[in-house]
Amino acid sequence: MAQVSAVKREDKTEKQERLLIILSKGTLDMVAPALMIATTGATMGKEVHMFFTFWGMNAINKKTIGNLKVAPVGNPGLPIPNILGMIPGMTAMATGMMKGKMEKAKIPSIPDMFKMAKDLGVKLHACSTTLEVMGINKEDFIPEVDDVVGAATMLELGEGGQILFI
Amino acid sequence: MAQVSAVKREDKTEKQERLLIILSKGTLDMVAPALMIATTGATMGKEVHMFFTFWGMNAINKKTIGNLKVAPVGNPGLPIPNILGMIPGMTAMATGMMKGKMEKAKIPSIPDMFKMAKDLGVKLHACSTTLEVMGINKEDFIPEVDDVVGAATMLELGEGGQILFI
Amino acid sequence: MAQVSAVKREDKTEKQERLLIILSKGTLDMVAPALMIATTGATMGKEVHMFFTFWGMNAINKKTIGNLKVAPVGNPGLPIPNILGMIPGMTAMATGMMKGKMEKAKIPSIPDMFKMAKDLGVKLHACSTTLEVMGINKEDFIPEVDDVVGAATMLELGEGGQILFI
Repeated sequence: MAQVSAVKREDKTEKQERLLIILSKGTLDMVAPALMIATTGATMGKEVHMFFTFWGMNAINKKTIGNLKVAPVGNPGLPIPNILGMIPGMTAMATGMMKGKMEKAKIPSIPDMFKMAKDLGVKLHACSTTLEVMGINKEDFIPEVDDVVGAATMLELGEGGQILFI
Repeated sequence: MAQVSAVKREDKTEKQERLLIILSKGTLDMVAPALMIATTGATMGKEVHMFFTFWGMNAINKKTIGNLKVAPVGNPGLPIPNILGMIPGMTAMATGMMKGKMEKAKIPSIPDMFKMAKDLGVKLHACSTTLEVMGINKEDFIPEVDDVVGAATMLELGEGGQILFI
Repeated sequence: MAQVSAVKREDKTEKQERLLIILSKGTLDMVAPALMIATTGATMGKEVHMFFTFWGMNAINKKTIGNLKVAPVGNPGLPIPNILGMIPGMTAMATGMMKGKMEKAKIPSIPDMFKMAKDLGVKLHACSTTLEVMGINKEDFIPEVDDVVGAATMLELGEGGQILFI
């Protein structure tokens, strides 16, 4: 596998150029920046890896990728009181608002950002432990996902580089 | 601009001394540690950059900086049941409690921490994409903000250093 | 103290092998990955430090470690509508579900992961500022905690290494 040989490469002088993004959140407002940083890093010539774990699995699951949400409740960054956030439909409204604003700012959709990332050489890895804990199958993943790896391989992929935990 | 020349500096031997803090959260309990780490790093002689994106924009917006909140709902770290967290006023109460405790522990206010950070040479950058998505104007920012930059410049500012995503 | 001499070690060529995990969250779904990454890193021969701050303090407090929760409210990654998340008992249910799934996947409990981390040489540091703000005493900590340190010592422990902010 490509990423394994990359782990073992010998040119130590370039090692700062690696960027590993661990995505543990499954909300639109965290998945979007993770993908923006990944694609930007790849455009700059970095070797970029994304590792999807816990709620981050929502971003690469075919069943959930089209429906990533923004929570109006317990999110004091949104100008919606908690009591209103409870009303059914408010999560959909907050999510729709953000999606609309992202479209207006010409930001690609999440599925399109994954395609861009893939074209730019970003490697996508799913966390094996999360698969087991959450009972997710490989067949549930979008086709852009490269493989399923454990935490040790994940840390090796970030060896000598920068790691972001999102 | 100062940070651009900093990016291009030649002394590669010092590059571990850079610290880039990406702040994506807009709650008091995340903005406070971000600023504490930034000011501490600067005191230790590091070149520190803060990049404000998504909800982190709340921390540098004049309209919101004085009113950063702690959410009692959906925050199982707080000893308040969700059902009580719904009662109007509970966010204010949780926030007031934390502010009171921070004052008692002689921790400076958020605006004062920004002044300290600035005095110590910390550079403050706002995310251009978030400005566009959220419809925020530069005029909304506190005067300590240095500039508005994109993700590529942000990654350059962290080049060869440590990056924290908060 | 062991970790202080570690900071001052002379072998600069190995410095990428350091891993500092700053844990600021107190929920089961963030404490578990933090500990998994820490133990994995230690197994791979890294010098691993964990720094517990803000809500992360829940993970090392004897009063709370046995009762870390997953929030069903304001967590759009969970398939529970906000309005249902409000019903008393739903936090317990979401937490119980995750604990059950973790056990089934043979993942050790949080207290057991701390014991493993300790056996593997991971150093555990509590944030002095959080102690003061939250009025927590050293006596409240699980015995695995090594010491109470400030932000400057914390940054020194990560010097030259990788830092994750969880």
